[in-house]
Amino acid sequence: MSATTELAAGRPYLAIPGPSVIPDPVLQAMHRPSPNIYAGELLSLTDSLIPDLKALAGTQHFVAIYISNGHGAWEAALSNTLQPGDKVLVPASGRFAIGWAEMAEALGIEVEILDFGTAAAWDLTQVAERLAADKAHEIKAVLGVHVDTSSSIRNDMAALRAEIDAAGHPALLMADCIASLGCDRFEMDAWGVDVMVTACQKGLMTPAGVSFVFFNDNAAEARARLSRVSRYWDWTARATPQEFYQYFGGTAPTHHLYGLRAALDLIHGEGLEQVWARHQHLAQAIWAACDAWGQIENPQLGLRMNVSDPALRSHAVTALHLPAPRATELRHWLEENLGLTLGIGLGLAPPDSPEWHGHFRLGHMGHVNGHMIMGLLGGIETGLKALDIPHGPGALSAAARVLAQSE
Amino acid sequence: MSATTELAAGRPYLAIPGPSVIPDPVLQAMHRPSPNIYAGELLSLTDSLIPDLKALAGTQHFVAIYISNGHGAWEAALSNTLQPGDKVLVPASGRFAIGWAEMAEALGIEVEILDFGTAAAWDLTQVAERLAADKAHEIKAVLGVHVDTSSSIRNDMAALRAEIDAAGHPALLMADCIASLGCDRFEMDAWGVDVMVTACQKGLMTPAGVSFVFFNDNAAEARARLSRVSRYWDWTARATPQEFYQYFGGTAPTHHLYGLRAALDLIHGEGLEQVWARHQHLAQAIWAACDAWGQIENPQLGLRMNVSDPALRSHAVTALHLPAPRATELRHWLEENLGLTLGIGLGLAPPDSPEWHGHFRLGHMGHVNGHMIMGLLGGIETGLKALDIPHGPGALSAAARVLAQSE
Amino acid sequence: MSATTELAAGRPYLAIPGPSVIPDPVLQAMHRPSPNIYAGELLSLTDSLIPDLKALAGTQHFVAIYISNGHGAWEAALSNTLQPGDKVLVPASGRFAIGWAEMAEALGIEVEILDFGTAAAWDLTQVAERLAADKAHEIKAVLGVHVDTSSSIRNDMAALRAEIDAAGHPALLMADCIASLGCDRFEMDAWGVDVMVTACQKGLMTPAGVSFVFFNDNAAEARARLSRVSRYWDWTARATPQEFYQYFGGTAPTHHLYGLRAALDLIHGEGLEQVWARHQHLAQAIWAACDAWGQIENPQLGLRMNVSDPALRSHAVTALHLPAPRATELRHWLEENLGLTLGIGLGLAPPDSPEWHGHFRLGHMGHVNGHMIMGLLGGIETGLKALDIPHGPGALSAAARVLAQSE
Amino acid sequence: MSATTELAAGRPYLAIPGPSVIPDPVLQAMHRPSPNIYAGELLSLTDSLIPDLKALAGTQHFVAIYISNGHGAWEAALSNTLQPGDKVLVPASGRFAIGWAEMAEALGIEVEILDFGTAAAWDLTQVAERLAADKAHEIKAVLGVHVDTSSSIRNDMAALRAEIDAAGHPALLMADCIASLGCDRFEMDAWGVDVMVTACQKGLMTPAGVSFVFFNDNAAEARARLSRVSRYWDWTARATPQEFYQYFGGTAPTHHLYGLRAALDLIHGEGLEQVWARHQHLAQAIWAACDAWGQIENPQLGLRMNVSDPALRSHAVTALHLPAPRATELRHWLEENLGLTLGIGLGLAPPDSPEWHGHFRLGHMGHVNGHMIMGLLGGIETGLKALDIPHGPGALSAAARVLAQSE
Repeated sequence: MSATTELAAGRPYLAIPGPSVIPDPVLQAMHRPSPNIYAGELLSLTDSLIPDLKALAGTQHFVAIYISNGHGAWEAALSNTLQPGDKVLVPASGRFAIGWAEMAEALGIEVEILDFGTAAAWDLTQVAERLAADKAHEIKAVLGVHVDTSSSIRNDMAALRAEIDAAGHPALLMADCIASLGCDRFEMDAWGVDVMVTACQKGLMTPAGVSFVFFNDNAAEARARLSRVSRYWDWTARATPQEFYQYFGGTAPTHHLYGLRAALDLIHGEGLEQVWARHQHLAQAIWAACDAWGQIENPQLGLRMNVSDPALRSHAVTALHLPAPRATELRHWLEENLGLTLGIGLGLAPPDSPEWHGHFRLGHMGHVNGHMIMGLLGGIETGLKALDIPHGPGALSAAARVLAQSE
Repeated sequence: MSATTELAAGRPYLAIPGPSVIPDPVLQAMHRPSPNIYAGELLSLTDSLIPDLKALAGTQHFVAIYISNGHGAWEAALSNTLQPGDKVLVPASGRFAIGWAEMAEALGIEVEILDFGTAAAWDLTQVAERLAADKAHEIKAVLGVHVDTSSSIRNDMAALRAEIDAAGHPALLMADCIASLGCDRFEMDAWGVDVMVTACQKGLMTPAGVSFVFFNDNAAEARARLSRVSRYWDWTARATPQEFYQYFGGTAPTHHLYGLRAALDLIHGEGLEQVWARHQHLAQAIWAACDAWGQIENPQLGLRMNVSDPALRSHAVTALHLPAPRATELRHWLEENLGLTLGIGLGLAPPDSPEWHGHFRLGHMGHVNGHMIMGLLGGIETGLKALDIPHGPGALSAAARVLAQSE
Repeated sequence: MSATTELAAGRPYLAIPGPSVIPDPVLQAMHRPSPNIYAGELLSLTDSLIPDLKALAGTQHFVAIYISNGHGAWEAALSNTLQPGDKVLVPASGRFAIGWAEMAEALGIEVEILDFGTAAAWDLTQVAERLAADKAHEIKAVLGVHVDTSSSIRNDMAALRAEIDAAGHPALLMADCIASLGCDRFEMDAWGVDVMVTACQKGLMTPAGVSFVFFNDNAAEARARLSRVSRYWDWTARATPQEFYQYFGGTAPTHHLYGLRAALDLIHGEGLEQVWARHQHLAQAIWAACDAWGQIENPQLGLRMNVSDPALRSHAVTALHLPAPRATELRHWLEENLGLTLGIGLGLAPPDSPEWHGHFRLGHMGHVNGHMIMGLLGGIETGLKALDIPHGPGALSAAARVLAQSE
Repeated sequence: MSATTELAAGRPYLAIPGPSVIPDPVLQAMHRPSPNIYAGELLSLTDSLIPDLKALAGTQHFVAIYISNGHGAWEAALSNTLQPGDKVLVPASGRFAIGWAEMAEALGIEVEILDFGTAAAWDLTQVAERLAADKAHEIKAVLGVHVDTSSSIRNDMAALRAEIDAAGHPALLMADCIASLGCDRFEMDAWGVDVMVTACQKGLMTPAGVSFVFFNDNAAEARARLSRVSRYWDWTARATPQEFYQYFGGTAPTHHLYGLRAALDLIHGEGLEQVWARHQHLAQAIWAACDAWGQIENPQLGLRMNVSDPALRSHAVTALHLPAPRATELRHWLEENLGLTLGIGLGLAPPDSPEWHGHFRLGHMGHVNGHMIMGLLGGIETGLKALDIPHGPGALSAAARVLAQSE
């Protein structure tokens, strides 16, 4: 009998960098009748989400909830702060920074990208120079992706703020925390972020469909200066609703609100500091395994993390190289034989090129723990062996050793 | 012991005009792990939705799915066909026509409203005159709400098309079927509708959060003429995606797609003609009861349907008058004592006025049948008696008589 | 188009006398992973059920939980108190009393039935005479069905106890409250009941599969006198477990325990007195409708309640006569056309006889409220009209009038 | 920060030897309204279970379904074949064989145990000698536990049959497959098993609460010879029902039936041979890891499988030794730190003894696959390191190597 499909019965494990694994209490909370959207429980439940969302983002200012995915939140953030002809600076460490920039362009905004490739963090010196050169303050905002899901680079948002301030530049700092919120430490107010966008299907552990834009007074002033903002994206009424329906610019995303309530209860029940520490601890175990796998005679033939410097690695997603077409073969083997789904590579090679099959990604965000990570890593080790892909020894033991440590 | 709350244990019944009652198979289908969004089951499932959605709308052309509520679909429809400075004509029979117009204005579109009040259908003669007067064809589109959820007026969309054609006017006909699709007969292609917007939480019986814009070649040409469309609202890639994520301009609304699959199976399993006939039959039972309740010495003191002419009444929502503050008292009594939630009045009186408490609405859309309607009407009769509100006799019997008839 | 199946889309309504409608919170609570059965949450949750079950039964003594249906609880009660050759007296008002007696016979117990037919309560004078005649105290127990689900007769358990006491007879009083617990008032200790059996799928609103035997010290002494009790039925360890598994004589019914927790929260949250009052109020509305329907020239041709005296009627189930084969026709019509399922008749006519089609039953137990009852009655009125079954006017209005009253 | 509880957020993983992990489709199927129990879908669904259950057991004869746990099925099997005073022979390889014997004793059956300890399979020579010595055929049945969940010994049921036949002995062969059905190969008819008992919460992947007794014509004849069988346990009507309720001797376990339908679809969809091969493959991976962990200087200080001979090991449960109190410490650490719950030891040491803390068990039955097993083993390796428990190297790599192999 072939091994194919033999071992795939059992729980599916979706280890892609979003959507993440949905906790049972979230799904339970969403399996319910439609509530009244004019009075009653849903209204107070929704009110209760606001402070918990702000605490998650580390802000005391405003949050607007959108029925949309993260791309919608991108557009919302841009629509409330910029108008056609305005200019933004986009330091980029991966595909999603470029994507946000493209969205801005489609709105008629002039975009200047500082592209640092797919394996390096922002070069803040270059950013500082560019800002210093912008004497006329034509740049209205700097768009920074905190963790780029494609490259798994984690950028230093507070340092970017420091450069803007050092340059005495009035540009807004707008952050994309779609892949980091609830995973990597993020402190909006403390770090001086003016606008932050995120979505619910990663660290927030809720089925995709709702996104968020957080903003502070600076951003609110920018909004006030605009002559026209699309009604759907306008964050004003959403963030300070007089009537319940204004939270959502129309009908509420009823079931998602119940799911979010359950997810926020899980996060704040565990404690945000602990949530961050858990993600870090689990990521370190993954890195230890990857380091060990890479210890082979010719490292070019084996598995390699995209980001060399641990200080620049996301705690929620890890992009990996494996010589094409082994990355794709490994993904397929794991899905068919172990019920384990890894993420495809994104942005590290052109979609139709042979090299595209030389990358993949691991999602380790949200509802994850030690046995899951060991199952993920143990699955990969199994696949490496099944496909005769060179790999160094002791990877799983190394990961276990990390997980065994107190901190 | 007080009757208060005594009888409210038991199933809650949400009889508001959306969100509607969610069928158990839809909720079951949504209670599942997040699927892979890059390959596998979700992709073919999503593909399978498209022809079934088109069949529901009566079109062979295009559909774009949006993660948004109906207001988002409004904005999407406008964004793909019009640009700032363009003009639209809006014949209005209720609050939602005005709402769509306001959304257009916020996009910089010039709006001309023909307001026929809240209890009358469009006066097509006036519409025809206005179009005839527009020699320069400044009017780029006519926005028509098929069933206005606030007034429960159902307008004649095919007749509107006939007037536009008779005037030889090139304006697009754009229809809002949020409250009618899957309830009242609607045939997009046969009726000559160019753009149609709807959402999932009414006749489509799925938790709020996804909406749809259907469009034909005329509308696609209008889109092609635009120099700039926001990336999120642009329907081009959504309707003809090369990659799966383009369906949704980013992350898919994973769980909603499973829910929609189940909902469309229910609708097409029953048969669309039968679904329409069921809604009609149930509506007629409601009307029979309302007619009977209204047979009192001074009809001004009793319950009265907002729309006098049955031919103009929605089959999915019924707006009613009851002298203030009795409408509000009735709603409260039913919710507290019978577990039955009716809809508030919308748009028939200013929100803060005493008259606001003189209106309410019944939702009878989607997952409804005979015992539910008799429970709804029986509840109202109970409330009328409990609150000593004058009402004619025989209402429930009259409704039962209607339901007992074959057709 | 035929009315057939046209109106059946929408929520199904199962109005049979058990299983009853399951509340959403109960189903939500059961949709979860299997818990550990050796430590943790399940153990404390199970402990928490015991006082709430006792409060529901009105006893401060013992309860044993069985994974079984109500028939299993019958056998458990018998197995712990009687041995082959013992004699029991069974006053009967319906099929279920006979069924319990047959179960006793199958265990080798001698059974004496006092059969009062299917439309009358116990004649306590006859019971008293029989007990008085039993000078030798050969009768070890009196088995009394509180509410017989087949006839919908509700017997007076406290009065039966009084007769046993008056006769100075030591027989145990054993009550079947399967159809009454959580619906009709029942007070085990106050009424002097020694053993009570019930199950979870009626007033307890939980999917069928768990049953209960409550017992007091008298019954425990009877158990202690037995030389042999089957291990599965033995209530000793179940009622006073040293280890968690002893609660269930093996593996716990894990998911049912979560369901029961949710159901007991609903009951005690509403308040037991109020639960009883609600059932009474709803039953009175049903009776008012039935009385009105029966007001026809020749009452033999119409609908008639099985139990004439309201004081003897269950508040949870109503057995009805309708000339054969109209009862069956009515049930079929309602299921196919309105999505409403009524209960078949049981025990009022032989299963294969033409008369069998002259009876049906309504369940109105557990998770029911005013709009549901009006939907049930409205459905029946619709069916009566559709099938041209003679019925008096004003039934629904009469029911609404009852529900409108405070008490 | 302490490691304690840090890594336990994320999916809980219950790796005890039953209840096992419930597949999502089973839970989905059970989250539904109560169905009618007198007509309709539930009746045909239940009929459909019978052939699939028989195929699972490898029999063409009879199956009776019980609302009970496995202990109830034990009692049912005994009750239908034996009467007080009859004698049974019980070769024992663990606690559950003793438990079944005790249940027989409580029914008045004379029990003779051949106890082979907790780490050895049946000595069939001794069994053969005992049967040969029973010239009078006083032994009416041999009770054999196929896989004893406490010891994880798997016995050779076909060989036991061969001995009975070789002895020309008419005793019934009764098998307990509670821990093996749907996991280890079992072929009732081919192996000559007369009665087989099992339950739904292990290989059948359904919440605990339903059990099964399969029997053949020999067993049916034994039943026919009995003068009295308790009504609840009597398998006659259950296996050959004239009316639907007879399947269950009363009210059906409605929701479990939907769950079973989904579970049987999963099993037969995968294919029974493949299900068995999957369990074997996964078990071999576990054994490889355990072997490696045990390679230490003083094996007495480390982890050791209870069953030395792989041919005698269950494919569904593995009992392990780890010097007290390390076994208990390991279980606690894994639950608190990784969200991974292992099974307690059972029957290998007295419950209150210090030695009790020197045993634990792994469940790997039903809904399990490769990534889950690697997560289980990876978790254990983590715990061994965290607690400084001596263990040999390369365990996880060895397990991965096994899983990587085709067969």
